[in-house]
Amino acid sequence: MNLKDYIKNIPNYPKEGIIFRDITPLIQDADAFRYTIDEFNKYAIECGANKIASPEARGFIFGAPVSAMTKKSFALVRKPGKLPRKTISEEYSLEYGKNILCMHEDSIQPGDKVLIVDDLLATGGTSLAACHLIEKLGGEVVGLIFVIELVDLKGRETLKDYVVKSLVEYEGE
Amino acid sequence: MNLKDYIKNIPNYPKEGIIFRDITPLIQDADAFRYTIDEFNKYAIECGANKIASPEARGFIFGAPVSAMTKKSFALVRKPGKLPRKTISEEYSLEYGKNILCMHEDSIQPGDKVLIVDDLLATGGTSLAACHLIEKLGGEVVGLIFVIELVDLKGRETLKDYVVKSLVEYEGE
Repeated sequence: MNLKDYIKNIPNYPKEGIIFRDITPLIQDADAFRYTIDEFNKYAIECGANKIASPEARGFIFGAPVSAMTKKSFALVRKPGKLPRKTISEEYSLEYGKNILCMHEDSIQPGDKVLIVDDLLATGGTSLAACHLIEKLGGEVVGLIFVIELVDLKGRETLKDYVVKSLVEYEGE
Repeated sequence: MNLKDYIKNIPNYPKEGIIFRDITPLIQDADAFRYTIDEFNKYAIECGANKIASPEARGFIFGAPVSAMTKKSFALVRKPGKLPRKTISEEYSLEYGKNILCMHEDSIQPGDKVLIVDDLLATGGTSLAACHLIEKLGGEVVGLIFVIELVDLKGRETLKDYVVKSLVEYEGE
């Protein structure tokens, strides 16, 4: 299955000069969505993870099914103010300004082998912050898997210490 | 399985006098999470839905696995500014102020039978707005299913025209 057939290219969204890759047609197609999750499931088993972690909100769409289907614990990576119990946080830089991500302290146990699942790898800033949060809590990041990789934004360089997989690459377009 | 064992009660969150029901321990427990999704899957098949719809962000955690496992299309109900293509929106009142929800116009096809999956039924405002969006696009809401129902907040009255199911009820506490 060519997943690009289910990803819509939206020029100039959210701002001028950016092509947004819209995964909503993919999840609206039951076969394409299941195919994507099955590919993720294979890797979740192969990499030896006992836990899945995903950043909100689109990451939940892909991480939660992998967690449920492979019966691995699911840990949330959220923006500040969304997790009610004791959290740790990590600040990271965006093109303009900063962002903060949080995890519940008990969402990772020391020794956990964690696979990060998300929709899109761009610069890798969000993913790297998630790796740091997991490591601060004593977990090991055994891999990161994405539906889409925007190759020109060099997320793999940012994540050079980790195993990175993606199902679909966009380059120079 | 008693799911209440996996839901933490957080007094005075997000504000004084509110007991927040935290489902993160449930999703962190692989067996409890899978049990919850299996219960939802049974109902998704029984109610004849061909499509699952969930409001962001916690709704995605439960709706996406049901969609993937039962191979039904998944439609997103999101806050403004999150969906890049043509949307319709619905405004509804909260205790203080207003909220707006959006769906992509092509996320529902006329005749679709839609099951709404979410984590929590409180007053039912969000759910009713989601029902209206689906109906505006020509879909039929064949049911709504929640992990938690806060009985005192009378969401079932707000949703009296629909079939409502929940796995866990909290009342007078």
